Amino acid sequence: MLRVGVVGASGYVGGETLRLLLHHPEVEVAQATSRRYAGEFVYRVHPNLRGMTELKFMDVDVDRLAECDIVFMATPHGASARLTPKLLEVGLKVIDLSADFRLKDESAYPRWYGWHHPAPELLSEAVYGLPELHRREIAKARLVACPGCMAASAILALAPVVRAGLVDLERIVVDAKMGSSGSGATATLASIHAERFGVVRPYAPAGHRHVAEIEQELGALCGKPLKVGMTAHAVNIVRGILSTIHTYPVGELELRKLWQVYREAYGDEPFVRLVRDKKGIYRLPDPKVVFGTNFCDIGFELDKHAGRLVLFSAMDNLMKGAAGQAVQCLNIMLGVDEKTGLDFPGFHPA
Amino acid sequence: MLRVGVVGASGYVGGETLRLLLHHPEVEVAQATSRRYAGEFVYRVHPNLRGMTELKFMDVDVDRLAECDIVFMATPHGASARLTPKLLEVGLKVIDLSADFRLKDESAYPRWYGWHHPAPELLSEAVYGLPELHRREIAKARLVACPGCMAASAILALAPVVRAGLVDLERIVVDAKMGSSGSGATATLASIHAERFGVVRPYAPAGHRHVAEIEQELGALCGKPLKVGMTAHAVNIVRGILSTIHTYPVGELELRKLWQVYREAYGDEPFVRLVRDKKGIYRLPDPKVVFGTNFCDIGFELDKHAGRLVLFSAMDNLMKGAAGQAVQCLNIMLGVDEKTGLDFPGFHPA
Amino acid sequence: MLRVGVVGASGYVGGETLRLLLHHPEVEVAQATSRRYAGEFVYRVHPNLRGMTELKFMDVDVDRLAECDIVFMATPHGASARLTPKLLEVGLKVIDLSADFRLKDESAYPRWYGWHHPAPELLSEAVYGLPELHRREIAKARLVACPGCMAASAILALAPVVRAGLVDLERIVVDAKMGSSGSGATATLASIHAERFGVVRPYAPAGHRHVAEIEQELGALCGKPLKVGMTAHAVNIVRGILSTIHTYPVGELELRKLWQVYREAYGDEPFVRLVRDKKGIYRLPDPKVVFGTNFCDIGFELDKHAGRLVLFSAMDNLMKGAAGQAVQCLNIMLGVDEKTGLDFPGFHPA
Amino acid sequence: MLRVGVVGASGYVGGETLRLLLHHPEVEVAQATSRRYAGEFVYRVHPNLRGMTELKFMDVDVDRLAECDIVFMATPHGASARLTPKLLEVGLKVIDLSADFRLKDESAYPRWYGWHHPAPELLSEAVYGLPELHRREIAKARLVACPGCMAASAILALAPVVRAGLVDLERIVVDAKMGSSGSGATATLASIHAERFGVVRPYAPAGHRHVAEIEQELGALCGKPLKVGMTAHAVNIVRGILSTIHTYPVGELELRKLWQVYREAYGDEPFVRLVRDKKGIYRLPDPKVVFGTNFCDIGFELDKHAGRLVLFSAMDNLMKGAAGQAVQCLNIMLGVDEKTGLDFPGFHPA
Repeated sequence: MLRVGVVGASGYVGGETLRLLLHHPEVEVAQATSRRYAGEFVYRVHPNLRGMTELKFMDVDVDRLAECDIVFMATPHGASARLTPKLLEVGLKVIDLSADFRLKDESAYPRWYGWHHPAPELLSEAVYGLPELHRREIAKARLVACPGCMAASAILALAPVVRAGLVDLERIVVDAKMGSSGSGATATLASIHAERFGVVRPYAPAGHRHVAEIEQELGALCGKPLKVGMTAHAVNIVRGILSTIHTYPVGELELRKLWQVYREAYGDEPFVRLVRDKKGIYRLPDPKVVFGTNFCDIGFELDKHAGRLVLFSAMDNLMKGAAGQAVQCLNIMLGVDEKTGLDFPGFHPA
Repeated sequence: MLRVGVVGASGYVGGETLRLLLHHPEVEVAQATSRRYAGEFVYRVHPNLRGMTELKFMDVDVDRLAECDIVFMATPHGASARLTPKLLEVGLKVIDLSADFRLKDESAYPRWYGWHHPAPELLSEAVYGLPELHRREIAKARLVACPGCMAASAILALAPVVRAGLVDLERIVVDAKMGSSGSGATATLASIHAERFGVVRPYAPAGHRHVAEIEQELGALCGKPLKVGMTAHAVNIVRGILSTIHTYPVGELELRKLWQVYREAYGDEPFVRLVRDKKGIYRLPDPKVVFGTNFCDIGFELDKHAGRLVLFSAMDNLMKGAAGQAVQCLNIMLGVDEKTGLDFPGFHPA
Repeated sequence: MLRVGVVGASGYVGGETLRLLLHHPEVEVAQATSRRYAGEFVYRVHPNLRGMTELKFMDVDVDRLAECDIVFMATPHGASARLTPKLLEVGLKVIDLSADFRLKDESAYPRWYGWHHPAPELLSEAVYGLPELHRREIAKARLVACPGCMAASAILALAPVVRAGLVDLERIVVDAKMGSSGSGATATLASIHAERFGVVRPYAPAGHRHVAEIEQELGALCGKPLKVGMTAHAVNIVRGILSTIHTYPVGELELRKLWQVYREAYGDEPFVRLVRDKKGIYRLPDPKVVFGTNFCDIGFELDKHAGRLVLFSAMDNLMKGAAGQAVQCLNIMLGVDEKTGLDFPGFHPA
Repeated sequence: MLRVGVVGASGYVGGETLRLLLHHPEVEVAQATSRRYAGEFVYRVHPNLRGMTELKFMDVDVDRLAECDIVFMATPHGASARLTPKLLEVGLKVIDLSADFRLKDESAYPRWYGWHHPAPELLSEAVYGLPELHRREIAKARLVACPGCMAASAILALAPVVRAGLVDLERIVVDAKMGSSGSGATATLASIHAERFGVVRPYAPAGHRHVAEIEQELGALCGKPLKVGMTAHAVNIVRGILSTIHTYPVGELELRKLWQVYREAYGDEPFVRLVRDKKGIYRLPDPKVVFGTNFCDIGFELDKHAGRLVLFSAMDNLMKGAAGQAVQCLNIMLGVDEKTGLDFPGFHPA
């Protein structure tokens, strides 16, 4: 049994990672750390785990973490950049759920995150943890940097058409709608139920940090620079993200061609579903359908009138947008079935 | 006292119109019609009106409606096109909340609505009931055609920059997020709470009918054809719409210029607020803030990175998007203060 | 014009009071105080008031408050007990929305609130601000202590049957369901959207402080001691409270008798509606229907099988449960129509 | 592999049963019937199953169902009473999720359900499918009648104290709060999002049918007749039920005694958790915590002031309240680990 540790396990991403790992047949959860809740039962913070585990949170201790084989970092941005080098040094593998090793370009950190990276030498080694693009590198990686949820959502929807050169690279708009769990387990006035319930609140009208990841990954796919304009909204759900992506085709584009490139890209993927149905209530992706699952549902529509191609991408931000993605990477690194511990169909109704 | 009738008063738009007119100091509600609920107390269908009125629904009868001075049509699309000509003939004024007289071009009806207009001769006479664009014509109108809620939302946000020639007319995207009251008081499986709760569901990925109105009105403003790509989503609220509008500036554009054109356009408007704050929780428009009010809140942001101008427009779809708009038009027609019966500040928290 | 001040105006109760007073034709809002937001525009904190007022919050200053005629105290429990005596001393009238002057019995404060009352001599003078029970005393009062929202809800439902001696005084259960605005504008982990959304969470299984008020007021009505068991739950709404009250009739009880005692009690009340309909969707009280209004809707049902009488009482906790109640008291004190500034019918749908 | 069929598989209970059985290692889903959707892909109706199964709905056909080993009946009340006898006749075992075989007393059907039972001879054979009370009989049963969700919730909370004679049997109140999935996949005006969102709506103030089951099962436990008064409310969630149960202790009752009887009753139960914590956000049962799981969380509180014992019972109405319960019964009948296919910890946050 592989021994895993989760650093930052009291947050939502850390808790979700813990939930998945506790039920994962190939691993044993050796440690869950939380500075704030050290000594407390895990189920006090994550009440879903009541009766499932008697684990207690520990404080972070590199020496103790060294007893693990793999560590998941679910820390606030900035913390992993300082801790991960030490973990690698003692021979651990690290799957990082923060933003700290996602960007290849050292200068992107001061620009998008406002700080200089303390371990820039690791940026080229780190593998961007999106299996659909980097499965082979993930298998051999020592350090995996899992994508941001909005980035994952946008990249998966855009990759096939960007790779195939089907859309104008200067006119890509990502209009994202996010659930409240994306803001983390932190109490602010803006996040309390009375203020946050029932909103459709633009919280990042432009300049969201995930733009950097999206441009990096899509740019690598097409070999050209591209510009992504992202606007993020808070909506009245807890889990889930829908990215609606507005693009403009280069030249004539038919549905048949779209089916072709999407099937080529994702036909064999265990966690990407193409959703574009002619019947039923759920004809296009909707986060309600993927609640609790590791699926990314992708759909598309051609707007002949306005010359537009619209893409839709729905996922559970804590699953395929974070913890589920990380466990999928783990499975690849372990060489087991990618669906191990992730084969959950979701609910109807959720 | 002006005698008013509301046709189709058992629906949400009709009920909201009724609510406003029952409290309006210049009018008396003479009739509220509903085929389905004829003979039933109005408060049975609209429970908020319990104790406020003993009015009962009547069946539709042109002769009886002739006793009114003005009639509000809150009927399903298609019904008003047949009834309104008869009402005009007996000397009534009509404020139509359906789509039946919004479009000037007769050929637009078969194209966007799938039927031929039975009274095309009235299309040029009908005034598009958006006071911010057509106040003077509304004042003298015999027939006012109130905008669709998504159209009103988009037009008000776009009008200043389109009129000033600031944005690319071929690359306008309206990404709309709608509450469930927009679907009306009709029972379908897709609309029940278990299926509709918690969704972020793209229900009109392209080709929404309101595009026709938007292009008509904005085209008239700038004197050129333009293309609007609209995608509409259902979100987990009852009332409210947020339109996020993604545009591309023509040439250099600064915030100062934007403030200038928006202030010029709306500085004196009683029901348009510019919302772009540097502090607080609600820095940009959010339908939660305008719940129950007749306000359209408009905001904007320049995305220098992606060369984008993003506009935000929030309203209550049943108020400024329907009944409130209609009553504002009524006030203009009556020559009274436009805020009469509409001066409601909304709630915090809503 | 009467000059009014609102102390604690940045909270939800204070903000709602402000909203009502700003639109009240008989008063002028002279001051709104907030220690935390002193100097800040009121609309930054209460975004619904944007464009409605240029008022700024001030710090609390007794000398400056002395320029008012009446002061509304919307402070945390304990603060009013210290400030109100000073305000009375300078000749002001005070309408207190906190719990500090609700209880007549000095010894109840240490028992239910955990502190000794600093001004016990005022407890007998203070009038419990429930117009349906104390209208005459309110008219002449110098100090009005408005009820807690759950207390108001329970007392209004129970008063007629307790006064008439129809129910067992030892077996009264109040099962309350509350919206999140009842917790106030305070950020705690328990109150953030991700944790609070979708709950049916028992937050006060027994011993809620409002029990003291309920027993005091109902005891006075029937001249006997009685016991109320209250359990309070948080539910997934922002505004509103439903109290379901389970009682056991003494002797035979028929619906006709219930209609009689409730009509006698509330037939002429402007803000109590009896809701027990045979048709329609909303046959019994529901907070959704009274959202934003000053109504308390009351209904009842006899459970012949279990020998039970069930009462239902729905109100908006910030309106009839707080600010609306306070303004109703103000109207009584001013001798104007009780509905002044409160005549709002609510929404359908809300 | 056991071959199972699900009759009525297009509803919510049937769909949830299907979801569980498709992932159950000991069974193969041979048939899923639906009159309405016969010929349609299952995933069109249950979008969570997209990519999980290519199964199509069939029409109901007893001869074809005879090819199964066990059939789950998820039909509307009344249908199973007619079909189940035929299935038993051809040698099938039946797990019935409807109410048709829950009541032992033939005369209870006309009284509570309004029809005469067509197969009363089966009522004594049928085993009430609550493992915590009838595990041994379930193991040997040919026909299992799974409890109603509100009944299961109330019985599990009450059984220990009723069995131990701790509470007054004439003064038991069940105040239930239900999610919208409990109303099934049926479109009515009362159930659409605009009308159902944000309610706290008493929909069964007295006389709910589940009372009959509760009194039957608890009466059998204590050997005496008892009276349960139930009031059911619709609240703003999709899945979940909280039953708050108000009782009056007979004689002195201490927390220690309660812990003892509840531990004795449920200490070894795989799906009942006792939740009464002193710390954290979730100190008492809350349906949010058990969303998607087969747990019933039970808590209690003594109200010394009012002489009351309050019980709380939270479950997912489609899981432990229906499909999960049925699969737990299946596991018992198969002699496999009861947790097979049900070992899901729920989400944080849900």
